[in-house]
Amino acid sequence: MEYNPFHNGHLHHLQEAGKKTGADLTVAVMSGPFLQRGEPALVDKWTRAETALKAGIDVVIELPYVFAVQPADRFADGAVSMLEACGVTDICFGSENGEIKPFQDAAESIEQHGQQIDQQVTAHLSAGKSFPRAYNEAVTEAFQGSIGLDTSKPNNILGLEYVKAIRRRKNVIQAHTIKRIGSSFHDQDPSSAAIASATALRKIIFDKHQPFTNVRPYVPDISFQLLHQKKENLTDWEAYFPFLKYNLMTAETEELANIYDCSEGLEHRFKKNIHQTKTFRQFIDAVKAKRYTRTKLQRLAVHTLNRVNKSDITGWSPGKPAPYIRLLGMNTAGQAHLSAMKKTMSMPLITKASAGKHPWFDLDLKASHIADFVQSSDSLKEYQKKPIIID
Amino acid sequence: MEYNPFHNGHLHHLQEAGKKTGADLTVAVMSGPFLQRGEPALVDKWTRAETALKAGIDVVIELPYVFAVQPADRFADGAVSMLEACGVTDICFGSENGEIKPFQDAAESIEQHGQQIDQQVTAHLSAGKSFPRAYNEAVTEAFQGSIGLDTSKPNNILGLEYVKAIRRRKNVIQAHTIKRIGSSFHDQDPSSAAIASATALRKIIFDKHQPFTNVRPYVPDISFQLLHQKKENLTDWEAYFPFLKYNLMTAETEELANIYDCSEGLEHRFKKNIHQTKTFRQFIDAVKAKRYTRTKLQRLAVHTLNRVNKSDITGWSPGKPAPYIRLLGMNTAGQAHLSAMKKTMSMPLITKASAGKHPWFDLDLKASHIADFVQSSDSLKEYQKKPIIID
Repeated sequence: MEYNPFHNGHLHHLQEAGKKTGADLTVAVMSGPFLQRGEPALVDKWTRAETALKAGIDVVIELPYVFAVQPADRFADGAVSMLEACGVTDICFGSENGEIKPFQDAAESIEQHGQQIDQQVTAHLSAGKSFPRAYNEAVTEAFQGSIGLDTSKPNNILGLEYVKAIRRRKNVIQAHTIKRIGSSFHDQDPSSAAIASATALRKIIFDKHQPFTNVRPYVPDISFQLLHQKKENLTDWEAYFPFLKYNLMTAETEELANIYDCSEGLEHRFKKNIHQTKTFRQFIDAVKAKRYTRTKLQRLAVHTLNRVNKSDITGWSPGKPAPYIRLLGMNTAGQAHLSAMKKTMSMPLITKASAGKHPWFDLDLKASHIADFVQSSDSLKEYQKKPIIID
Repeated sequence: MEYNPFHNGHLHHLQEAGKKTGADLTVAVMSGPFLQRGEPALVDKWTRAETALKAGIDVVIELPYVFAVQPADRFADGAVSMLEACGVTDICFGSENGEIKPFQDAAESIEQHGQQIDQQVTAHLSAGKSFPRAYNEAVTEAFQGSIGLDTSKPNNILGLEYVKAIRRRKNVIQAHTIKRIGSSFHDQDPSSAAIASATALRKIIFDKHQPFTNVRPYVPDISFQLLHQKKENLTDWEAYFPFLKYNLMTAETEELANIYDCSEGLEHRFKKNIHQTKTFRQFIDAVKAKRYTRTKLQRLAVHTLNRVNKSDITGWSPGKPAPYIRLLGMNTAGQAHLSAMKKTMSMPLITKASAGKHPWFDLDLKASHIADFVQSSDSLKEYQKKPIIID
């Protein structure tokens, strides 16, 4: 989850998930300060975790940077491995249709026709198609259109990857899906209904011509209260852009070529376009070309901002579990569950920043330092924070 | 010169220099956006050049970064080589006493006792003394106190280096000195007299409790007008500090160790102290130790901000001339002089940024881009600027 911000759709999902699984405990894996689509979070991760806990989730853990700012396969694989380590038995994700069978069918077929699909994706990419389109066409071709799942929709892509990741782990976890309600993921124009996408809500928040209170109908009260408390610290890419620009202005092209996920000479495109652009939006518009998705460019911008190099992110392969679990918060039920789990947990549970020893955790720390510095000029916060505990 | 800002003391110096030399033309070599003591200039170099021209100087050229953000020997050596290339016959510098003979005597004796002085400086530095103090004691010891020049005073240090640089060039240029008037260089409390140091004036400008007009008595009218026009863009280190902090937060220690002039593990001191400091002043106070002068640390901070590596500044030795001259502005007399000189000039005269091909010029450009970005969010300015021409 990203909870950026936590809205009524998230609450609906949580309630439906409870009904569907009869779960007595809920664990959420949440991205840290930088998100899957290559954007910084609106508000710090501690506030987002607190909101989730107060909305009824029992344990919130942080998805490491190495999985969070990544395509769906890696994002889902990391998250599932951490949920498994926490003893989770059921995973619920949102989808357009709310039916699990097409996901299971698609996952099974991809396992069978994987090589054919890979070849077709490569062919479509060479023909200049974007990855989502190339993938959807390749999958459709392989199944001859019989699968009943549009894999070009972001939520379906992610759901499919959850199911694939679960299957890789020998099905010890059961997958469920819940139909998303209200406006679609890409919709930017919230109606008067109480459901608006996170994208639409961020648009309201950063629109100088709209009062902040316009988000109120679309988010639970607790979310509104906490967002309101942090009103002066809410950030989008534009708050980070001066630092990205400074970095691109001062870095050598060879340094940029070393940034994780930098390929095909994008370091030159980035450097060439930085001087003439004054906003992040202008910058991405300037570097955008048909062969790169906006998300790919935004993720590269996040890695560049954080100066994450290729050598910092190595050693991942599908199915390889996350190497640690960073705990952000829990309620008393969550605390009891973790205490019981702790002895047999397959990953170290990190409860304070200074205890994290894995090199990937250093990336989480660096990303949090930068976000805290930009959001609140307090780059030391990460060292002072303890997991949130609520009754 | 640094003209940071151009004040009545500069005007006095200019007038006295005219009387002393009978010069029909004046050339000023001025630092670009970053200054000798490791500070950013208050206002952009074009505004400072324009002020100097309107105050009566005929030609203003830019001292390259490679010479400007350096100890006095290198600063003076670069400046003298450029003045020589411009056909200058007399150089005037300010000093505490206004007598040239002690400078000539000191320079001659240093040539004779150089090795002994170097050894003594090393010994004093090992004993934990700061460089200015070590140098002054070593020089005093070599001359047995008879020289009549306090070489721990910044202006005397610089004057001595001008004289040494001129002697290295076989005395084709004649050295003069003019007694500085009013408060001393380090004084930070301007009296009611019309003379105040540049340091004192910057203190007024960045003091929120003083009106900007308080600087008016101490600067020529034209200087006040131009400063006033740029009122919203005047910057000290604090405006640059967020970028220095971001850089120190994201750079690896090994990258910092590669920064020009980084030695004795200062990369660790810089990195260790950055999180807990919220202002540049706090930062320098935190890293300061007896063995490092504040100026040395500030210069390292400038190189870190500009990401200038050791490999970017190589190949200088005393007496080696600057490789190019960047023209910032001229009046018609200056223009006539340069036209006449141009054919025989020993260095290329750069009149637009895109024409500069030397790797050192790339550093000038990068430094200007950063300063323009921080001062006016316009990092492209340097490519658009042509030399200022006034009647």
